[in-house]
Amino acid sequence: MQSFQDLIAQFSQHFEKQHFPEQPGKLYGAASHILEIGGKRIRPVLCLMGNELFDTLRPDAFEVGTAVELFHNFTLLHDDIMDKAPLRRGKATVHTVYGESAAILAGDVMLINVYEHLNKVDPHYKQKIIAVFNKAAIEVCEGQQLDMDFEGMDPEQVQYDDYVYMIGLKTSVLLAASLQLGAIIGGAGDGNQQHIYSFGKNIGIAFQIQDDYLDAFGDPEKFGKQQGGDILANKKTFLLLKALELCSPAQREELKLLLETSPADKVERVLELFRSCKVDEWAEKEKERFQQLAFQSLDNIAVLSNRKAPLMELANYLLNRQQ
Amino acid sequence: MQSFQDLIAQFSQHFEKQHFPEQPGKLYGAASHILEIGGKRIRPVLCLMGNELFDTLRPDAFEVGTAVELFHNFTLLHDDIMDKAPLRRGKATVHTVYGESAAILAGDVMLINVYEHLNKVDPHYKQKIIAVFNKAAIEVCEGQQLDMDFEGMDPEQVQYDDYVYMIGLKTSVLLAASLQLGAIIGGAGDGNQQHIYSFGKNIGIAFQIQDDYLDAFGDPEKFGKQQGGDILANKKTFLLLKALELCSPAQREELKLLLETSPADKVERVLELFRSCKVDEWAEKEKERFQQLAFQSLDNIAVLSNRKAPLMELANYLLNRQQ
Repeated sequence: MQSFQDLIAQFSQHFEKQHFPEQPGKLYGAASHILEIGGKRIRPVLCLMGNELFDTLRPDAFEVGTAVELFHNFTLLHDDIMDKAPLRRGKATVHTVYGESAAILAGDVMLINVYEHLNKVDPHYKQKIIAVFNKAAIEVCEGQQLDMDFEGMDPEQVQYDDYVYMIGLKTSVLLAASLQLGAIIGGAGDGNQQHIYSFGKNIGIAFQIQDDYLDAFGDPEKFGKQQGGDILANKKTFLLLKALELCSPAQREELKLLLETSPADKVERVLELFRSCKVDEWAEKEKERFQQLAFQSLDNIAVLSNRKAPLMELANYLLNRQQ
Repeated sequence: MQSFQDLIAQFSQHFEKQHFPEQPGKLYGAASHILEIGGKRIRPVLCLMGNELFDTLRPDAFEVGTAVELFHNFTLLHDDIMDKAPLRRGKATVHTVYGESAAILAGDVMLINVYEHLNKVDPHYKQKIIAVFNKAAIEVCEGQQLDMDFEGMDPEQVQYDDYVYMIGLKTSVLLAASLQLGAIIGGAGDGNQQHIYSFGKNIGIAFQIQDDYLDAFGDPEKFGKQQGGDILANKKTFLLLKALELCSPAQREELKLLLETSPADKVERVLELFRSCKVDEWAEKEKERFQQLAFQSLDNIAVLSNRKAPLMELANYLLNRQQ
């Protein structure tokens, strides 16, 4: 049993290699660019942890982890084109450097590469590995489409439950599937696979609520981002959608007016409204609720509880961050 | 043993179903749109024929055929975005109707769906099926990148051999792989797989030479396209690249001037130049050469020659068309 920090170090070393051939240079330059932008490699580590929860770490977990990390980067690459984003982690996005066509194609070739890695695993569970991966991959695409659909709508038109569903697809199913894929490699049965999936899904949603909360109420110095960035961008968040539900008709009108007109003191005034309808307290409770659902699922997994310690630590690390 | 016409009818019936769920409507509407534009379904039929050359037709050939046809349509969808093409087969392209973002995402979800079908085949040869498919899929992407690279270059900068290599990747490897995938399902050994692959690859190149030839010298009434469309668009073709190689320095200058200035009688004058440096005769011989290479590979396949009749008929149908 290894800590998540040790596994991150192990995986990062495994992943730091040339993933693509040299030529055609523009195609593989574009594909390599997104990998060089970096990231915490959380998803592949979940895959390793899912494996180690049930059995000794197998090389297949590194193959599937690589597949999951390549897939995640493929989604970032194509999402950045769709969002016309100039920067990611402070670096120029792929389409900005290589043009849109090469960026589309680089994503495509990365997605095919994902299946080169999945095709290497033990035939004993290959069918199940590809099926679980594909389900999550399709859901991630569906989540991205729903997110784009919601973006074109007024906040009031977006139902809170639909938003939770979309966020689940867009940000949580891949975390959940990464754990399940590892569990399959570790020999877990269907029941345990479902529990670990559910753990990952709920941790993902709790994390997103925390992310929205910190953007609004976090200490900008610790959080490392501009306070109220989501509010300034009129982004649909857990807080905004719930506030529209909780507040009085008068407050709702004021909130809508602030979104439409964006006065200089917009962030302050929206935060004041958020506080007065207690959406800050609600968010803390809602995050706690999903966190408890996650821990309940972890409890339900039929292995000795000391094996669960690293997953517990990772969850606490993710859900107690200030930055 | 069935004729290719019968197999086209069989596959088309199998393929004519709803491939995607209803929601999100924009995502799956976009994915369905490209399938509704139609096509001859040549690649999946090659897969069926590859299977039947060696053994009775198996349901797996229909799964892999569906995968190959979905992949082909995915490439058309993404290529149309890259080429900013408004029309395909006279119908509005996906990105024109659904917007670029939904079109990118629809391609992505189709590519994932490809592997849902590949994941259904007999575990006995699944590893090989996915490996052969992935190799071709990656090469198609590489071909598309090289094509875009060449597009930005002067015709004189593009070497003839590099062009043949690019066309092979872009248009022939998927035909070749479709046959090989079918052969794997039919139980063919490695040698026979290589022969049928080589047959498909060379037929594909011969077909492309014919396509370029007909665009320039074909009877526009029979060919159904505007004569000299490639010439008008300054498209790099087998004919243009070879003409630049065969002609005298004076002719080369004239040809380059025609490409740059596009006078009203451009098509006539380029065709005259093509004829005077005998690139028309060369093209007929070059097509014949690749066709003979293909037939030699077909000959080499160790099955009774009457089993090869349908493939021979399909090759003759493809390579003797006037339209």
